[in-house]
Amino acid sequence: MLAEIITIGDEILIGQIVDTNSAWMANQLNLIGVSVKQVTSVSDDEAHILQTLKDAEQRADIILITGGLGPTKDDITKKTLAKYFGMGFRRDEAALEMVRQIFEKYKRPLIDINMQQADVPDGCEVIVNRNGTAPCMWFEQNDKIFVSMPGVPYEMMYLMDDEILPRIKSRLKLPSIIHKTILTANIGESFLAKEIEEVEDRLPAHIKLAYLPKLGQVRLRLSAKGEDELTLRAEVEVYAKAIIAKVDKFVVIDEDIPLEKAILNVMKERGLTLSTAESCTGGYIAHLITQHPGCSSVYWGGAVAYAYELKASILGVNEKTLATFGAVSEETVTEMAEGAVKHFKTDYAIAVSGIAGPDGGTEDKPVGTVWIAVSSKHKTVAKVFNFSNKRIQNIERSASAALNLLLNLLKEDL
Amino acid sequence: MLAEIITIGDEILIGQIVDTNSAWMANQLNLIGVSVKQVTSVSDDEAHILQTLKDAEQRADIILITGGLGPTKDDITKKTLAKYFGMGFRRDEAALEMVRQIFEKYKRPLIDINMQQADVPDGCEVIVNRNGTAPCMWFEQNDKIFVSMPGVPYEMMYLMDDEILPRIKSRLKLPSIIHKTILTANIGESFLAKEIEEVEDRLPAHIKLAYLPKLGQVRLRLSAKGEDELTLRAEVEVYAKAIIAKVDKFVVIDEDIPLEKAILNVMKERGLTLSTAESCTGGYIAHLITQHPGCSSVYWGGAVAYAYELKASILGVNEKTLATFGAVSEETVTEMAEGAVKHFKTDYAIAVSGIAGPDGGTEDKPVGTVWIAVSSKHKTVAKVFNFSNKRIQNIERSASAALNLLLNLLKEDL
Repeated sequence: MLAEIITIGDEILIGQIVDTNSAWMANQLNLIGVSVKQVTSVSDDEAHILQTLKDAEQRADIILITGGLGPTKDDITKKTLAKYFGMGFRRDEAALEMVRQIFEKYKRPLIDINMQQADVPDGCEVIVNRNGTAPCMWFEQNDKIFVSMPGVPYEMMYLMDDEILPRIKSRLKLPSIIHKTILTANIGESFLAKEIEEVEDRLPAHIKLAYLPKLGQVRLRLSAKGEDELTLRAEVEVYAKAIIAKVDKFVVIDEDIPLEKAILNVMKERGLTLSTAESCTGGYIAHLITQHPGCSSVYWGGAVAYAYELKASILGVNEKTLATFGAVSEETVTEMAEGAVKHFKTDYAIAVSGIAGPDGGTEDKPVGTVWIAVSSKHKTVAKVFNFSNKRIQNIERSASAALNLLLNLLKEDL
Repeated sequence: MLAEIITIGDEILIGQIVDTNSAWMANQLNLIGVSVKQVTSVSDDEAHILQTLKDAEQRADIILITGGLGPTKDDITKKTLAKYFGMGFRRDEAALEMVRQIFEKYKRPLIDINMQQADVPDGCEVIVNRNGTAPCMWFEQNDKIFVSMPGVPYEMMYLMDDEILPRIKSRLKLPSIIHKTILTANIGESFLAKEIEEVEDRLPAHIKLAYLPKLGQVRLRLSAKGEDELTLRAEVEVYAKAIIAKVDKFVVIDEDIPLEKAILNVMKERGLTLSTAESCTGGYIAHLITQHPGCSSVYWGGAVAYAYELKASILGVNEKTLATFGAVSEETVTEMAEGAVKHFKTDYAIAVSGIAGPDGGTEDKPVGTVWIAVSSKHKTVAKVFNFSNKRIQNIERSASAALNLLLNLLKEDL
């Protein structure tokens, strides 16, 4: 079963927003056995949208459309869909009621432009959107399903979770897709490929292997498609085990979870606690960790010690150390990590201090120089990295490297 | 001048990664006057890639392709491009030299699969990639330009910045595009539309207005296209001023920058300092702030006080307050904000404490209940919010609301 995703609106095409919706939708569709053939972003241009719908209808069985449903004049998705299907308009009572309720809840006057949100092409089925004023619309034509949803991520997500995915599942007889991901670190893509070549060469046609490299980690993803889920799962497990046997020491975890979540799981299982002391990563490591539900049983918190004063006052870094060696040094980052373990009373701590850039570099310590330390009550490991001259990348790569160092220390301590 | 962006690879289509490349590329292209007509993501499937190239060539003048250039078997972009243009292969000496240098730098043995990275379709021009082993390839056919780049974001960004954009600019006679963005907060999209209707109705055909809503903020973007940049800029300024005059009290800033950057600018100008005390946002506000170069002159740092113990020890929250009112309360969040101002010695502080979910809610304080306080040396404002039951959204909306409250306090203090 094939789907296509079409996002409508200028925002993506002029680079104002990143299209996070499509990745989320694609992931959900894959989980129920629907493959996404293409993701297409087009602007609010009637002729282009009509052509895109026609192309998608030829390739896919399900076409999911987001965006262009706002009350303002630049949003033309609804009119264009009516034209595509040759439909007129009707005002939908259930949708209008939802608009009324939302305006009542926020105590705002209901004006005509908002009521027009309840006008829909007369041949569609309306699926009420409980989180916004733009209704979701379900069309069928020539055995193809078209669903138009708002582009606001959480409105789209609720509609997909609560309405669209269950309907798709119950309507269509779907093949099973099984994914199995192995997260590796500290080894490059081509070396991985060489190590596991023998396994890759004997994969059957219905099982595919993909390499997904990111920030010093490579995810290996096996995907199997077929009729019987249990058989597929068993088959994939055999190949996954064969891969793991070949590259065991580089395997972080055989689940599709981020590195920090893998660490949280290991620490939770062992009853360990963690804190952070961040300078140049500025709270990014804390944010990565606290995205995950249930992190509070492991993660106690930490400091974002940007200023010298805070490195001293919160983390207890010696002012002499700062003055002698500078903030970006083995000595300072070691005291930061050890200070976090001591003052925050956790079993482990991560500390990062570096020059994220674009300014602040010197000849000795150019932009991209980052000291990272990880500390337990018994041991501290500090390491220097030389990343790029781009700020955001330096922050992300520092976080990834810091988590990697922590994982290695946790493995040692087993 | 029209461009299309094609991303090749399963990663986006199965939802493993979010396509951040396309938004970045689109933004850069717009800045030099190239409009992006379509962004298309397709998988590593030869027939589908060939059709996508053909369609794009019919619509656009420049086709930028990312991804599918890795050394492993699932990457087929290079072979497919050779087929599309009817070319054979040659080994490129400059590209091979770069591969050699990179392997030398990282002290890794060079194996055959890596040397094959330097094999390119024989009719393309190779643009050396200084940050990775996959070369960038430039093709021309029927007055159309095709550029194939690696999908690794920082490799692509360097190539675009240093090579591709300058070449496009020097090769093509481009029209000017001027964007002007007005960031508003505390007003909904439809109310904004009503307030500025009169201005919108008299916009000339070559100036477009778009509404870009996100997390309680709406960006209004005027885009003008034409020959003379100075004339366009002057025209757009007139309409921008007219819009600002209608919705003055909701305008944060008339620049296309994020809310936290607008705040940093205001505080820097007034010589003010800021700290943060985050519980449920877990470092996300600190991360938003520290993404921006130069933030250190305003932002001193803060605490991620996840555990009760850290709220008391770092921020000086009274343990009795925590015991009596709980961590998610007006009293606690007020002490957190005032504690940050006092202990971190800053002029202003932001504090957030809430239940991000999915667990931890009670009848009185359901998931999504978030207390936010902003504090100066003279005044603290605390406010409760009721967001959704989705963790990531609660974190993002809390951060946005907190920044909004800070901005309002800064405005009061003027």
